[in-house]
Amino acid sequence: MKKTLLLTPGPTPVPEDVLEAMARPMIHHRHEPFRAVVEKVKEDLKYLFQTKNDVLILGSTGTGAMEGAVANLLCRGDKAIVVQAGKFGERWTEICEAYGVQAIPIDVEWGKAVDPEQVRAALDEDPDVKAVYLQASETSTGVRHPVREIAEIVAARENTVIVVDAITALGVFDLQTDAWKLDVVVTGSQKALMLPPGLAFACLSEKAWGLVGKSDLPKYYFDFAKEKKNLAKNQTAYTSSVSLIVGLQASLARIKEEGLENLFARTDKLARATRAGVKALGLELLSPESPSDACTAIKIPDGIDGAKIPSLIRDKYGVAIAGGQAHLKGKIVRISHMGYVNAYDILSGLAALEFVLRDLGYSLETGASVQAALEVLVS
Amino acid sequence: MKKTLLLTPGPTPVPEDVLEAMARPMIHHRHEPFRAVVEKVKEDLKYLFQTKNDVLILGSTGTGAMEGAVANLLCRGDKAIVVQAGKFGERWTEICEAYGVQAIPIDVEWGKAVDPEQVRAALDEDPDVKAVYLQASETSTGVRHPVREIAEIVAARENTVIVVDAITALGVFDLQTDAWKLDVVVTGSQKALMLPPGLAFACLSEKAWGLVGKSDLPKYYFDFAKEKKNLAKNQTAYTSSVSLIVGLQASLARIKEEGLENLFARTDKLARATRAGVKALGLELLSPESPSDACTAIKIPDGIDGAKIPSLIRDKYGVAIAGGQAHLKGKIVRISHMGYVNAYDILSGLAALEFVLRDLGYSLETGASVQAALEVLVS
Repeated sequence: MKKTLLLTPGPTPVPEDVLEAMARPMIHHRHEPFRAVVEKVKEDLKYLFQTKNDVLILGSTGTGAMEGAVANLLCRGDKAIVVQAGKFGERWTEICEAYGVQAIPIDVEWGKAVDPEQVRAALDEDPDVKAVYLQASETSTGVRHPVREIAEIVAARENTVIVVDAITALGVFDLQTDAWKLDVVVTGSQKALMLPPGLAFACLSEKAWGLVGKSDLPKYYFDFAKEKKNLAKNQTAYTSSVSLIVGLQASLARIKEEGLENLFARTDKLARATRAGVKALGLELLSPESPSDACTAIKIPDGIDGAKIPSLIRDKYGVAIAGGQAHLKGKIVRISHMGYVNAYDILSGLAALEFVLRDLGYSLETGASVQAALEVLVS
Repeated sequence: MKKTLLLTPGPTPVPEDVLEAMARPMIHHRHEPFRAVVEKVKEDLKYLFQTKNDVLILGSTGTGAMEGAVANLLCRGDKAIVVQAGKFGERWTEICEAYGVQAIPIDVEWGKAVDPEQVRAALDEDPDVKAVYLQASETSTGVRHPVREIAEIVAARENTVIVVDAITALGVFDLQTDAWKLDVVVTGSQKALMLPPGLAFACLSEKAWGLVGKSDLPKYYFDFAKEKKNLAKNQTAYTSSVSLIVGLQASLARIKEEGLENLFARTDKLARATRAGVKALGLELLSPESPSDACTAIKIPDGIDGAKIPSLIRDKYGVAIAGGQAHLKGKIVRISHMGYVNAYDILSGLAALEFVLRDLGYSLETGASVQAALEVLVS
C-alpha cells in the first residue's frame, strides 16, 4: 500500500477543501464572480501580510516575484546588498546580475544567520546602495534571519529599501510588513499558503513604489505598476490563474479562521517538537542558533550516506522530505513543518527518520525522537 | 437556477477528468512520480506541436512565453517585424519596446489578415531584421493569419526567425511546427488545451536556439536555456506548477485520443456552424475572409448597444461570451469554439445570442441561427 506524507519545504500538503475549490468549473477572469474572489483575497492577503497596502498577485512561482522585485525597483548599474547565506540568497545575486545590477554580497556561512551589524557596515561602506535583498527564512539551510533588526537599519536611510523573500516565512512566523517597515515582501503559494505552486505575491511600501516610478530595467509580465492598477479593479494584468486563486480564497479563509497568532504558535510548537526529536537521536541541527520554523535542517553524521535518505525514506517509508542543496547535498536533510501539517505528521516524520537511519547503520534508541517530540507537544 | 456556459475565447471549459486530476493530493516536483508525469507530457506536447523538439513548460500565462520569446532571442537594439492586426499583435510591440528592441510594425486593419507579401516587403526593406513576430490566430479579432506562407518567406533568410503566438491556434487548427519551419511557437493552457490559466509553452527550432546563445537581454524566470537543460531531466527550472501539469497530462491524453485530425475537423465544423448561425441572423462577421476557428467575432449592428451584450447574455441568459477590446469595445462580440466545446454548446450560444439581441431591439426570426447551425452540423 502506497501512502505518502509530504514533509518537504515546498510544495507542502494542500488541504482537501482547497483541492475541491480548485476543481470547480472554470470561470472567466474578468467577470463578476471572479472579481468577487479577488476582492476577498485582497483583503485576506492584507491580513496575512500585516499591511494596509495591496498585495500583488502574480501567476508564477516565488522566483518570478523575486525577479520583479529587482526589475521594478532598480536601474541598470545600481548597487544592491545581497545577504548570501544559502541557495536562495544566491538567487538574489543571480537575478541582480542578470539585470546589470551590481550585487554586493554579504557572504554568511550556510547554516548561520546574518548579523545585522554586517548589513549596517556594508551600507556605511556603500551609502549609495539602493536596496538590501535577503531571505526572512533561508529554505536551503533552515535559517531565520533577523529581518526586523535589519529593517530598522535600512529604514533609517532615505534612499535604501529592504526587500524580503518571505517565501518560507509568511504564514510561518511573525513578519510585520508595515510595523517593521519592510519595503518589499514577496512570497509564493506552495509553502505556508497551502496551495499548489503557481502563484506569487509582492507587497510594496510607499518608499518602494517611489523606486518603481524611476526604474529603467525591462519588465513586462512582472510589471508591478500595471498589476497595481489592475488590482484596484479586482483583476490581474494578464489572465489570472483562476483555479489557484479560487483555491487561495479557501486557504486564506483557513488562515484567518485559525488566526495568525495561533498559526504561528502551532508552527512554532511543531518546529520545536521536531528539533527536540532530532536532538534526542544524537543528531545536530545545521542551525542551532537561529532555526527557521519553516523547516528543520538536520546534519547527517559522518559515515552515514545522507544522499540516500530522501529517496529511501520516500520509497520505503512513505515520507517525502528534502535533502541538502549545492555543497550540503548528502550532508543534511530537511523536514518541513509549515502549512497544513499537524502533530501526527511530525511524529510520522520522526519515526520515518528513525527507520531510515537505522537502515543506514546509524545506532539509535527506537522511539527516542518520537518520545522527545511528544514531550514538547504536550507541554 | 444559475448555470453558466463558458464560451469565451479563454479561459475555456475544463473537462471534468482534468479538474479531478488537478484535485489530487500534492506531490513534489523533483520526485519520481512527478518526473514520470513530465516525461509523458513532454511526449504528448511534441505530438500537439507537431515537432521533434522539446516543448518548454513555463509557469505563467502565454504572455510570459511571449516575453521569453523576445528576451531569449534578441539583443538590445535589434530590429524585429511585428504584425499588428489586433491587441495581441500590439503586445509583441510592447514587449519588444520594453526590452529596447526596435519593433517595425506592419499595421493591418483589425479584422483583416496580414498579406504575406507585406512581410516579404518589410524584410526586403530591412534585411537585418532578426525576427518576425505574429499571431497564428489573433484572438481580439478572430482572424487567422497565413502563418505557413509567411514562414516560407522567413525560412529563406538565414538570419531571421519567425515567432508564432499560437495561443489560440495550437489545438484549434493545423499548425505544423517542424514541417512549416516555425522557429518559435508559444501557447498557453487556458485555450484549446482545456486547462485553467497558469501554464505557458514554447517550442524552439535549432535556428532559434542559435539566437538564444547570443541574446544579451536580461532574463531569469523565463530563461529558455535553463528550462531546456532541466526538461532533459524531466523537470522545470523553478518549482513546477504541479497541479496544472498533472491536469495537462489528462488534457493531452484527451487530445491524443481524439487525434489532431479529428480535433481540427470538429473545431472547424463548430466554427462553420457558428458563422452560419450568425449570418442567418443577418449579422456580419468581423473577418469574413480569414476567420479563425478559435472564436467568431461578430459585428454588432448600428443602433444596438453592443457593450451591454456580454454582461446581459451572461447574467440573464447564462452564457459567457467576450466583447470587443480597445476600439472594438461595444462593436463586436466573440464566441469561442475551441477546446472542450461541443455542438450543443454552439446551439446554446446562438440561442442566447438571439435572446439578447431581441432584448436589445434587434429584429430577427426566432431560431434562424440555430437552424442554420444545425444544417452545418448534420452535413
